[in-house]
Amino acid sequence: MNKIERITSVNNDLVKETVKLHQRKRRDESGRFLLEGFKVIEEAYRAGIEIETVFVLTDKALEYDFAKVVLTTEAVLKKISTTNSAPEAVAVGVQRRYDKSVLKDAKKVVLLENIKDLGNLGTILRTCAAFGVDAAALYGESADIYNPKCVRASVGNLWKIPVVSLEELSMFKDFERIATLPRAKTELKDFTVKEPYLLMFGSEAGGLSQELIDFGTRQVRIEMSGDVESLNLGVACGIILHQLNCMYSIDK
Amino acid sequence: MNKIERITSVNNDLVKETVKLHQRKRRDESGRFLLEGFKVIEEAYRAGIEIETVFVLTDKALEYDFAKVVLTTEAVLKKISTTNSAPEAVAVGVQRRYDKSVLKDAKKVVLLENIKDLGNLGTILRTCAAFGVDAAALYGESADIYNPKCVRASVGNLWKIPVVSLEELSMFKDFERIATLPRAKTELKDFTVKEPYLLMFGSEAGGLSQELIDFGTRQVRIEMSGDVESLNLGVACGIILHQLNCMYSIDK
Repeated sequence: MNKIERITSVNNDLVKETVKLHQRKRRDESGRFLLEGFKVIEEAYRAGIEIETVFVLTDKALEYDFAKVVLTTEAVLKKISTTNSAPEAVAVGVQRRYDKSVLKDAKKVVLLENIKDLGNLGTILRTCAAFGVDAAALYGESADIYNPKCVRASVGNLWKIPVVSLEELSMFKDFERIATLPRAKTELKDFTVKEPYLLMFGSEAGGLSQELIDFGTRQVRIEMSGDVESLNLGVACGIILHQLNCMYSIDK
Repeated sequence: MNKIERITSVNNDLVKETVKLHQRKRRDESGRFLLEGFKVIEEAYRAGIEIETVFVLTDKALEYDFAKVVLTTEAVLKKISTTNSAPEAVAVGVQRRYDKSVLKDAKKVVLLENIKDLGNLGTILRTCAAFGVDAAALYGESADIYNPKCVRASVGNLWKIPVVSLEELSMFKDFERIATLPRAKTELKDFTVKEPYLLMFGSEAGGLSQELIDFGTRQVRIEMSGDVESLNLGVACGIILHQLNCMYSIDK
């Protein structure tokens, strides 16, 4: 039998604690994060994410036996959620944290340098999961993947791929290290690479740092019309991952 | 010599008129739209977009001779802009409107059905411009491409490709009409198609309508991991457009 509590005040202590998870500092300290909406909560649970508390409207079905259930009001849901229109359920989940040991047997790793755009970050993690990437590595000043906007953009895929923050890159010394650059000589359609590989992306505004360009063993660009400066980062990442997967499936 | 006006009151009539462009109704009636930030204003001007008025902070350089320049305050810029942090310049531009005659000689057309997500819509138009798509067609209930959020997501590419709203599709009777469907039998890596073609996408939530599935002559899906439901729509569109371009460049 699940534990059910009733909270109607927006000034309740548990509500106040939960609202603090809007801030990165509190998410980092507590190792917790917010899940907004029934669908994403259930997907996270099925994927093995520990759910601590679920806040739901009083007139909604309550069949969850995996978490403390809090029957609450629209006002409370509006306060703890980060969207304009409050979802019917908001949960507190436990973050999955990885260290660099997850990279030990990895063959396909995507490195993201200084990615602050939360929509792009979530979209890229979703794409990595779709194309069988073994792990994603965050390098430099990265946004928090457990920011609710990134969780939303990943559409239930955030926890399907290990994500690790790195401060040095020596573990990739035996990898092909691919710098994606708009001015690279090799076009993607002519590009082939052997595993293990590290595919490196910089932010749309800043591109890859000179440090990572120098760290690369290979360079590639996506061929496109001369009068368009660049693609959206998530789109660029998807195109390259798909193309590399195609290459492998044709080779086999 | 350009015309320069000074406006300091947020209640000024021109300011009030400009703020109305936040609403689709007013944009549709007036055929005008907002451009936020120096970079996008200058790109739009260079691409031939008629700029009527540019609101700028008094301490910024004023070398524009193509529009009425309004020296104004941060408060006014904050009021007329749609972003949280007001840009240093906001302009009113004239929308480019196309009718279906732009499709007459088109060989590559992307059709978007019921796309309401403004970020996806702008990203897709940017991607279409990058991959040489001749025109985009909006079908069903579409968001307004001149919504400021879509303008931002297109990153200065909105006006590089004709976009037309359609109510019927008879002009595509001689096209290959490709339905992109998660359950299609043919995988993208094995897919070839002759021009002219119409590439059709539905929304992430709803997918393509049965009407358009039936209208299609071909079906294709992007191959991906079994436990990921779908890709971001902009990512999916980019992957397919890139792959079809590669196919053509290999054939030639």
